[in-house]
Amino acid sequence: MPRCTSRPTDESIHIMPIATQNLAKYIDHTALKADTTADQIDKLCEEAVQFGFAAVCLNPVWVRRAADRLRDTDIAIACVVGFPLGANVSRVKALEAEQALQDGAIEFDMVMNVGALKAGNHDVVRDDIAAVTEITREAGGLCKVIIEAALLTDEEKRIACRLAQEAGADFVKTSTGFGPGGATLHDVALMREVVGPDMGIKAAGGIKTAEQARQMIEAGATRIGASAGVQIVTESQ
Amino acid sequence: MPRCTSRPTDESIHIMPIATQNLAKYIDHTALKADTTADQIDKLCEEAVQFGFAAVCLNPVWVRRAADRLRDTDIAIACVVGFPLGANVSRVKALEAEQALQDGAIEFDMVMNVGALKAGNHDVVRDDIAAVTEITREAGGLCKVIIEAALLTDEEKRIACRLAQEAGADFVKTSTGFGPGGATLHDVALMREVVGPDMGIKAAGGIKTAEQARQMIEAGATRIGASAGVQIVTESQ
Repeated sequence: MPRCTSRPTDESIHIMPIATQNLAKYIDHTALKADTTADQIDKLCEEAVQFGFAAVCLNPVWVRRAADRLRDTDIAIACVVGFPLGANVSRVKALEAEQALQDGAIEFDMVMNVGALKAGNHDVVRDDIAAVTEITREAGGLCKVIIEAALLTDEEKRIACRLAQEAGADFVKTSTGFGPGGATLHDVALMREVVGPDMGIKAAGGIKTAEQARQMIEAGATRIGASAGVQIVTESQ
Repeated sequence: MPRCTSRPTDESIHIMPIATQNLAKYIDHTALKADTTADQIDKLCEEAVQFGFAAVCLNPVWVRRAADRLRDTDIAIACVVGFPLGANVSRVKALEAEQALQDGAIEFDMVMNVGALKAGNHDVVRDDIAAVTEITREAGGLCKVIIEAALLTDEEKRIACRLAQEAGADFVKTSTGFGPGGATLHDVALMREVVGPDMGIKAAGGIKTAEQARQMIEAGATRIGASAGVQIVTESQ
């Protein structure tokens, strides 16, 4: 079984990190394309061990395979939930998280109900997140709530972050990587301002270089989602 | 409750239709963006009634609302399943279909497991589709299998169509609209050649004009998925 949490052991990483030399510990090594194959998942897992990434971030069909490959390592398995549109009913998101937990995931990158947020149905958004955080908390896992910032106004981003916090999420995350835009420094700084120092922030979508990753961390990110993790870490050495 | 099937009443529509004057009966009026709002869903339903579309095609969170709006009409509710990546485990796809059925859907546009097809795991692909067709058949509904053709070689498209047919699906569908490409005449013709005259083919992704819709139908499509349904029908009148 993977360890119960993949929070970086240096607790300060959740606040505003200063030392960003070891970028690997910030990175969720990610493969989320529809046509990802087993060979690519195996390579992703091997690279995660080799470079010491925080987690691998995968679609549900790959969790069991990754859990087999990463047994007895400290690499967490992060599974996406309601991904990438977030427009699944809460009961299905909860079952998806439960199934992924059984399969070996311990982190859950869920997409919030964007339409409900847009319509001002805050209770619906909060309850939808809580349906997943109930499962992850009980298991000692982490729930990251993807707000898909590129679809939101700044005020909607603030509301989304507050609702995620109220629902007991561990992280807010900028983007799916499948929306109209990826992580921006503006959004990360705004999210940090709203959630305060104790909540995780994952910047994801379009981060391809060590310089970009460092800037995101300086703006307040405590985790970086990227398919270019190897390049980022290699550049930073 | 919506009617049990939305197959066009003219059975010849499933073969190679000649009369394409009434394009509306071919169209699944579609709203699948993450930030779709309740107002947009209401408008979609009103337009479906006004123009006489075959179905509305929606994300799971909107099925119940659409079912309320379309009660006592002959517009079918089509819900996407495992959308748009298809990389959810079969048990979750099945639950998503069951839930959507309870909420009022009778057609199910599911995305196949693309990675498994790419890896040659045909049993996995077939069983995954069958997990949904078992539910839809029992309910008298329709299962459309999205093969996401833009990610596949021609040979993979042929295999995908055969597996969908073997698993008891009612339709094969070209694209999610979220992948790297939409419907092409080449793909529709290829799919028609593989599945024979009795299976439905839904062309979706990038169809915006009556001329495009007519060409797709001439190539073998029996259903058109489009968010531009109103424009298509208005143009054709």
